[in-house]
Amino acid sequence: MKIMVINPNTSESMTENMRRNLLRIKGEDTELVVTCPDQGPETIDSSYDAALTVPPTLQLVQKANKEGFDAVIIAAFSDPGLEAAREISDILVVGIEEVTLHVAAMLCGKFTVLTPIKNRIPHKYKEVQNYKLDPWLASVRTTDMTVADTDANTKLAKSRILEVAHQAVEEDGAEIIILGCAAMVGYHEDISRELGIVVLDPTTVTLKICEALIDAKLTHSKKALYAKPPIK
Amino acid sequence: MKIMVINPNTSESMTENMRRNLLRIKGEDTELVVTCPDQGPETIDSSYDAALTVPPTLQLVQKANKEGFDAVIIAAFSDPGLEAAREISDILVVGIEEVTLHVAAMLCGKFTVLTPIKNRIPHKYKEVQNYKLDPWLASVRTTDMTVADTDANTKLAKSRILEVAHQAVEEDGAEIIILGCAAMVGYHEDISRELGIVVLDPTTVTLKICEALIDAKLTHSKKALYAKPPIK
Amino acid sequence: MKIMVINPNTSESMTENMRRNLLRIKGEDTELVVTCPDQGPETIDSSYDAALTVPPTLQLVQKANKEGFDAVIIAAFSDPGLEAAREISDILVVGIEEVTLHVAAMLCGKFTVLTPIKNRIPHKYKEVQNYKLDPWLASVRTTDMTVADTDANTKLAKSRILEVAHQAVEEDGAEIIILGCAAMVGYHEDISRELGIVVLDPTTVTLKICEALIDAKLTHSKKALYAKPPIK
Amino acid sequence: MKIMVINPNTSESMTENMRRNLLRIKGEDTELVVTCPDQGPETIDSSYDAALTVPPTLQLVQKANKEGFDAVIIAAFSDPGLEAAREISDILVVGIEEVTLHVAAMLCGKFTVLTPIKNRIPHKYKEVQNYKLDPWLASVRTTDMTVADTDANTKLAKSRILEVAHQAVEEDGAEIIILGCAAMVGYHEDISRELGIVVLDPTTVTLKICEALIDAKLTHSKKALYAKPPIK
Amino acid sequence: MKIMVINPNTSESMTENMRRNLLRIKGEDTELVVTCPDQGPETIDSSYDAALTVPPTLQLVQKANKEGFDAVIIAAFSDPGLEAAREISDILVVGIEEVTLHVAAMLCGKFTVLTPIKNRIPHKYKEVQNYKLDPWLASVRTTDMTVADTDANTKLAKSRILEVAHQAVEEDGAEIIILGCAAMVGYHEDISRELGIVVLDPTTVTLKICEALIDAKLTHSKKALYAKPPIK
Amino acid sequence: MKIMVINPNTSESMTENMRRNLLRIKGEDTELVVTCPDQGPETIDSSYDAALTVPPTLQLVQKANKEGFDAVIIAAFSDPGLEAAREISDILVVGIEEVTLHVAAMLCGKFTVLTPIKNRIPHKYKEVQNYKLDPWLASVRTTDMTVADTDANTKLAKSRILEVAHQAVEEDGAEIIILGCAAMVGYHEDISRELGIVVLDPTTVTLKICEALIDAKLTHSKKALYAKPPIK
Repeated sequence: MKIMVINPNTSESMTENMRRNLLRIKGEDTELVVTCPDQGPETIDSSYDAALTVPPTLQLVQKANKEGFDAVIIAAFSDPGLEAAREISDILVVGIEEVTLHVAAMLCGKFTVLTPIKNRIPHKYKEVQNYKLDPWLASVRTTDMTVADTDANTKLAKSRILEVAHQAVEEDGAEIIILGCAAMVGYHEDISRELGIVVLDPTTVTLKICEALIDAKLTHSKKALYAKPPIK
Repeated sequence: MKIMVINPNTSESMTENMRRNLLRIKGEDTELVVTCPDQGPETIDSSYDAALTVPPTLQLVQKANKEGFDAVIIAAFSDPGLEAAREISDILVVGIEEVTLHVAAMLCGKFTVLTPIKNRIPHKYKEVQNYKLDPWLASVRTTDMTVADTDANTKLAKSRILEVAHQAVEEDGAEIIILGCAAMVGYHEDISRELGIVVLDPTTVTLKICEALIDAKLTHSKKALYAKPPIK
Repeated sequence: MKIMVINPNTSESMTENMRRNLLRIKGEDTELVVTCPDQGPETIDSSYDAALTVPPTLQLVQKANKEGFDAVIIAAFSDPGLEAAREISDILVVGIEEVTLHVAAMLCGKFTVLTPIKNRIPHKYKEVQNYKLDPWLASVRTTDMTVADTDANTKLAKSRILEVAHQAVEEDGAEIIILGCAAMVGYHEDISRELGIVVLDPTTVTLKICEALIDAKLTHSKKALYAKPPIK
Repeated sequence: MKIMVINPNTSESMTENMRRNLLRIKGEDTELVVTCPDQGPETIDSSYDAALTVPPTLQLVQKANKEGFDAVIIAAFSDPGLEAAREISDILVVGIEEVTLHVAAMLCGKFTVLTPIKNRIPHKYKEVQNYKLDPWLASVRTTDMTVADTDANTKLAKSRILEVAHQAVEEDGAEIIILGCAAMVGYHEDISRELGIVVLDPTTVTLKICEALIDAKLTHSKKALYAKPPIK
Repeated sequence: MKIMVINPNTSESMTENMRRNLLRIKGEDTELVVTCPDQGPETIDSSYDAALTVPPTLQLVQKANKEGFDAVIIAAFSDPGLEAAREISDILVVGIEEVTLHVAAMLCGKFTVLTPIKNRIPHKYKEVQNYKLDPWLASVRTTDMTVADTDANTKLAKSRILEVAHQAVEEDGAEIIILGCAAMVGYHEDISRELGIVVLDPTTVTLKICEALIDAKLTHSKKALYAKPPIK
Repeated sequence: MKIMVINPNTSESMTENMRRNLLRIKGEDTELVVTCPDQGPETIDSSYDAALTVPPTLQLVQKANKEGFDAVIIAAFSDPGLEAAREISDILVVGIEEVTLHVAAMLCGKFTVLTPIKNRIPHKYKEVQNYKLDPWLASVRTTDMTVADTDANTKLAKSRILEVAHQAVEEDGAEIIILGCAAMVGYHEDISRELGIVVLDPTTVTLKICEALIDAKLTHSKKALYAKPPIK
């Protein structure tokens, strides 16, 4: 099977980091292309940034459809352009936030989402509500480091994640921690071990679920919400 | 006061129609610019279309901020780019869907939204849910005419709206009808008279509410959800 | 246009305060009568008080209908008698709580309602829930001063409001503050300036929205929930 | 134990009917006073009517407190004045709608409420929502007979109730039928037998539950929502 | 009337305690059998324990049906097997959690549930949600004593309950306290008196409500959710 | 990886059918044991049946833990005993209903659940609500054939499923069909092809997702809701 992972952030270092991590865990039969648009914001730090990444991301979705891919993963934790991508795609498109929230909801009663910067907290609450999965939401907590800093300063990032995850468990009743930022890739195993708790890395989880869906010959429904746009 | 009305559809005839209608009803002191982006889909018939209109719409929002406007109205009934626009705007930004749904909710127990084409019905349900105003939603019904047809064939459009609105009242318990498409501009008074029911034209309602908000010196809150994006 | 503002509290000083404030901000073409019933509790400090104000308030609504008014504003922040008033009124009737909560919901993600005395906190939560706008409710907080004290001791009232509003922003994530008591009239601009946040004075907001609705030729729907009572 | 049943409708024939029915089923030790206010609308056919019944009903509640009653039942199926009554009462006050809806919710998955006239349907939906028991609501259906007609024309009333209850079971999945009008008193046993389904007569159910609550030495909580109003 | 109270915990001391308490308060005409299964966990401290109690509890329900009882009360505060019991029973079956939560909801705005051990807190939240009564839930708090300890060490149990109930009132806004464990039987009157608040003992409340339902000739509906299983 | 699939129905033919189907699609590295308890109801046609299957199912879960399995799948579409199983299991336990509902919710806006017999319809609504996934539920529809009949009469079963699925799409807006009965195993591909819609076979979907979760080294959280029961 052939999967295109699109990082809507145009940061090459973040995309390379993601590529390395996913190649390590992909299924044997999985052919993986991890890419990012050639234009748009380097990192997504606002809804404004997210909005600008959508058109170039959609072009990559069209490319994946033409080039015989089996599925597309949109790999920024706010799933920019997911609905539009599904409309224009005959192959399965999944977003890392939607998949990860559902997997967390399958495996616990309450989860906490970590997000890099403070001013994204209300957006994460809103996103979880729009996905109608807020009954499972213990809290959104922030490491208070930008996406760029998280990407650059890995040691500090890890210790901040550990500290905040611990608070989520003790104070908010979190049973699972979701690392809600593509730049937090690669820490989940250590943190899971140190805290004795389930920690979800969205790109990892989503790649595995995506492989399973392809294996089960499933795609998003094209019947109503994601119907092909009328031809003009 | 100075208000920029942005029609994210690039159709000049639809924008002209909207301009004519709004100039007729604007407040005496209101200086009105009704415009549309110079690129993007002619009419919005899908989430894909909507996604493409966002970046050029956001450029117009930035222009309105620079040129001393008091407020911006995003005038497509799915409020494309509203959240991002509010982040980058110091002046009030409102969307015609959000304002109209709240006004309807103030004035009745149940409302029905009319939408041009059938494959947009699930999106309208989803939008009303995301605005958390579904407790008031009697139904979404379609006139089964594209935005372009609605714009072109006014006589048929009006008779279809009348028929469908009547069904909404009789079968779904609708107390208010919302004309959920910018191309339905100009019919609300006739239809209200013929059906003896409150009919909301979103651009009309929103212009009046927008003038009231400016008058009351109000803007969207910049504290959390719509905080200015970090400078990069 | 001709609007009757009914203060269901029979306190003349509070009504006069409200009159002064509203005359200052009303539209040029607005003819305003600000009045209160000639019987009933001086100030509304309980649901019991609110219940007693309803029959005399409804008589004023009937008077407004007979005397050619265009709209009635019920100006106590629990909207006593609003549903009954709409049944017996052919002209638009709005309540300051319902309008203000919807306006706040249009302009932010989370708002806080201030209420004068502690034992009204559960009622405010219940009212916001009954209006189905609790998804936006950050908190209800109290200044811990009776309506009468708020009316009499303006300096203390203002400093208490400032303190409590600040807590709501910092601790509850409030993006907008609603001054949920007719006696708090007149402080919103100062407090907005000092806190750098949107503050809503319900009577001010409602008068502006009411003028806009009249301008747009809208009224509450008379189709079902607010249908005229059967003649006996 | 001593219970005052207040019929907020001032109709003597309806009150007498209720008295006869309740005396037949009351507990041995129960001393029962079934009464109605001496002023107010003869029958409650609107929210306007309901609002007018509240002040005289509250006077009877105060009387019950002074005269050593153990509890008060407000016996109109919209519980007019219940919240205010609880504030001013040290003895238990219950409303027939609230009690009956909770009992129905204990005994089935879905119930239907019958209401006399068509224009009360939206109010019943709203009341059940405000009581937050709409997850159990299969439907509201109307017999299309006024309270007065239901009271006067018993044969037709019974056959209409039977017909509509049958529809609720077959078409809406109702498992319990609630006779949502004080004038429907006395039919529940026959209809239950003929339809083979549980049918709740609100005054009967409420009297029994009220006796049980007194027996268990319970009253409504006076801690917050129903705290005594401040003395003025 | 003849009621079988089944304590799904097989602890004889707990069952005896419950028997003594209920015999003291039962109605004059009530014939009461308080029993427990002869196999299964001594005390229910987990969902695993609860699951194991269900088959022997269902056998007792069948016995009650054969031996002419009028109703069965399942007396463990998680209502194990309630849905299955209702399917196989022609006589009324009630669970002490469902009844108590509804009675609390009738009498206040917010209640708190006390539960013996900490690891049952998430289950209590989940149970209240599954009963759809979470709009009334102020909090779940724990006395941090096992069922067995609560049963054995009555003095400590009482002082812990008092302490935690007080916190619930002061910090969570609880207006009613529910003693959510069959081993807490017998303290509610003292605690109610000492805290000046309504305290519900689930077995007491449920016995009284059960007698009232029998008196009103009511049973759970057998129409759909609790229909008799198909014969095999 | 080693997975135990437990069919809580003790029907050998149904278990064999499931085994055959799952062996065909399992991953190359997956060692699969498909089994059923040696006591309990042959087929689950009621909550009573479901309750009886739980203790023997839990014994198999304990066996899987002892014998070095990596995960357990509970393969009856009501997930009997899932919560208890997770408490006593250190290895991942998933239920086919929970997993399938979440996967459907990831891939569409609205899904329909098919259930064999009519009297299970209310249970399916209740289960989807308890899983808090009712925002996605278009409808529950029944093929009106018992589990045993579905298992025995495959031709009729398939044609009934096809007919009912078609109605769900046309009348209820279903975008995905869930075959909500273990006896419907094996039809999903044909029906998907014939209707041009996504059809989910719960055991197939769950096996694939379970393999993915094991691959991602995930298990259900043992922190709170599924904590190990206290040792006695």
